[in-house]
Amino acid sequence: MQQQVYQHTLPNGLTILGEPMPWLESVAFTLMFPGGTAREPHDRIGLAGMTLEMTQRGSGRWSSREVVEELDFLGVDRSSSVSSFYTSISMSAMARVLDTTFEVAAAMVREPHFPEDELEEVRQSALLELSSIEDDPAQKCFVELKRSRFAEPFGRSSLGSVSGIEAVSHEDCVAFHHAHAKPQGAVLSIAGRFDWQDFLKLVDRYLGSWSGGPATHLGDVEPRVGSIHVPHDSQQTHIALAYDSVAYQHPEYYRGRGIVGILSDGMSSRLFTEVREKRGLVYAISASSHSLKNCGSVLCYAGTTSSRAQETLDVTMETIRSISQGIESGELSRLKSRTRTALVMEQESSASRSSQLAYDWITLGRTTTRQEVLSEIEQLTSENLIEHFKNHPPKRWTLVTIGPEPLEFQDEV
Amino acid sequence: MQQQVYQHTLPNGLTILGEPMPWLESVAFTLMFPGGTAREPHDRIGLAGMTLEMTQRGSGRWSSREVVEELDFLGVDRSSSVSSFYTSISMSAMARVLDTTFEVAAAMVREPHFPEDELEEVRQSALLELSSIEDDPAQKCFVELKRSRFAEPFGRSSLGSVSGIEAVSHEDCVAFHHAHAKPQGAVLSIAGRFDWQDFLKLVDRYLGSWSGGPATHLGDVEPRVGSIHVPHDSQQTHIALAYDSVAYQHPEYYRGRGIVGILSDGMSSRLFTEVREKRGLVYAISASSHSLKNCGSVLCYAGTTSSRAQETLDVTMETIRSISQGIESGELSRLKSRTRTALVMEQESSASRSSQLAYDWITLGRTTTRQEVLSEIEQLTSENLIEHFKNHPPKRWTLVTIGPEPLEFQDEV
Repeated sequence: MQQQVYQHTLPNGLTILGEPMPWLESVAFTLMFPGGTAREPHDRIGLAGMTLEMTQRGSGRWSSREVVEELDFLGVDRSSSVSSFYTSISMSAMARVLDTTFEVAAAMVREPHFPEDELEEVRQSALLELSSIEDDPAQKCFVELKRSRFAEPFGRSSLGSVSGIEAVSHEDCVAFHHAHAKPQGAVLSIAGRFDWQDFLKLVDRYLGSWSGGPATHLGDVEPRVGSIHVPHDSQQTHIALAYDSVAYQHPEYYRGRGIVGILSDGMSSRLFTEVREKRGLVYAISASSHSLKNCGSVLCYAGTTSSRAQETLDVTMETIRSISQGIESGELSRLKSRTRTALVMEQESSASRSSQLAYDWITLGRTTTRQEVLSEIEQLTSENLIEHFKNHPPKRWTLVTIGPEPLEFQDEV
Repeated sequence: MQQQVYQHTLPNGLTILGEPMPWLESVAFTLMFPGGTAREPHDRIGLAGMTLEMTQRGSGRWSSREVVEELDFLGVDRSSSVSSFYTSISMSAMARVLDTTFEVAAAMVREPHFPEDELEEVRQSALLELSSIEDDPAQKCFVELKRSRFAEPFGRSSLGSVSGIEAVSHEDCVAFHHAHAKPQGAVLSIAGRFDWQDFLKLVDRYLGSWSGGPATHLGDVEPRVGSIHVPHDSQQTHIALAYDSVAYQHPEYYRGRGIVGILSDGMSSRLFTEVREKRGLVYAISASSHSLKNCGSVLCYAGTTSSRAQETLDVTMETIRSISQGIESGELSRLKSRTRTALVMEQESSASRSSQLAYDWITLGRTTTRQEVLSEIEQLTSENLIEHFKNHPPKRWTLVTIGPEPLEFQDEV
């Protein structure tokens, strides 16, 4: 399938990206604008998520319950989320309802009512959601890993904190939205079945008069090392581990990600084989590439019984370090094959392409094509992967464990 | 998009179904054959899952690690699973690697090596996976709900039991596979990019000589009522609830499912609105239709803080019963719109269509078309939904709670 990506920037600074996938009947768009947990006041952690929730409690010509009713009536699948630096609204729907669907999304950004009498409901929901991770230690492990690896304000969870959520006022939500939801630094991407010129007119109608200065600048991210243990009365231990790698914008990003693929992509991957299949240490193990601005990390998770947790941690770190001793040709060819397939499969999902376009833009300042990524992947060799690994060895480890006992942890670097 | 479904039955009894989706580059197939937890010996609970795991430890011309290595090399996404009555192998891949991918799947069924020296690894993995649900009370709630709602052998979890997993021998795996993995009562479905005649030849080559008598008959399923409480030291309470509804093969199934949609489909659904948005009682609430042979149920889940758990249960049951008092026209139109969209979206996923074809066949003995389901949905009215609800009111409730305290539970029927 031929890939084409349109690009246009409105006078107000909003960048619009479009990738037609005319073989689909669906269309998906993603609107990312400055916001996010790192821009919350230090005593209002949770404000970004509550503000986003408030925008769907009445916006534009839709009163409180009508926003969700309209979107359900249109058959829209949606996911809104808050990351460290951005707030995102993603929707996918049948192509024929794009106009009204987009109008709702634009109203959430431009004309939220912020009904004061719904703030307490929003606060209750936020507190409940935050408390729910106490019974989900696997998720909690990652929340704690982010918090301990990245200094304030970068390590905040989108779930917020109890004191932050309790302190948020109606004025806080209004002020946060107006201070950050601006077209400069925002990106709107669309993928699937749509007409580019028609879409530009639609965007101009609802977001053309959106205005506001550039997003506030946030400094660089520095990872912190060390380990923390969260006592948990259970026979399971959850292990989350992070170490330095290259970020998405790094010229050798695909080498770093390739190494993570060899470690963790597929049931024949090295971590799965060594830690799960051969030694039967874990029921779950995974590694993934993570970028927070300039700061690249690999994040790992392992879930095991507490009696085998120390061995699991040791074998996991040993397996990661074993990359320097060689990569088999079979590992490399499986990595390439799986990556090629994933790229083609992505072409069958408008939602995947839409969010990837937006992510590329805010991270790289440009879009990437399938051909470009394929070419990066084809150039990987055992030699250049190992060379990359030696130049960017795992270091500055951060460890979080949740379970009955802490583990011995030796960050050798 | 025009929908066409092919059907063919081999002399050995295997039914083959195919739905071309030539606008995709991927293809997906699902092979379901008799097996499942309900056919395990009563003192070998966990055997079905362990047997399935053993089939990918060497099959046909692939030795132990080569099965997963080959599938990773082919870029195959796969999911194998065990339900109450069937074992399923599902794979999706690029169309050009269909032949080898299918050969691997067929080898897992026809020529598993069952390497004796890998049984202990498989047992360890099974025990770890079973123990992991102790730290996942939301999942554990459903395991316990199934166990308490359905009598032996129907309520078993595919995760097995500790004593069952510990008792499984190599001979048990071999015997279970040979006793149940047979073409009569099995179905193979394919959807996506493929040529039907070529696929039939492929199936004939690898499964044409598969033989064996019909699957053993299992009696009808009767739901059990009552409540159980699993003490859990936490400030959260997890509530799982089941009550009678109509099964998938019932002529009024889409009315029953429509009512569940009004209760739980979308953010404007009744349970979401009443229990989460208006009263702020839960962080999660959902209801879904469930069929186990002749036995239809609605399964609900609610997660909340323990201090509000009793109110959550009461309001949830009250909201379910409120259907008899009326359905608003907006609720009905949103239900229809969301269902229509979901049906079209399904046409963009070969994996979804493939598994739906197989499920329809084993449950209904035929396939259903999008047009047929659409027509069922269009015929729904507030009147016939309420009439259905009154004829099939919620009754024979089963409740499972996991949390610090049990709840008061009044099954009024």
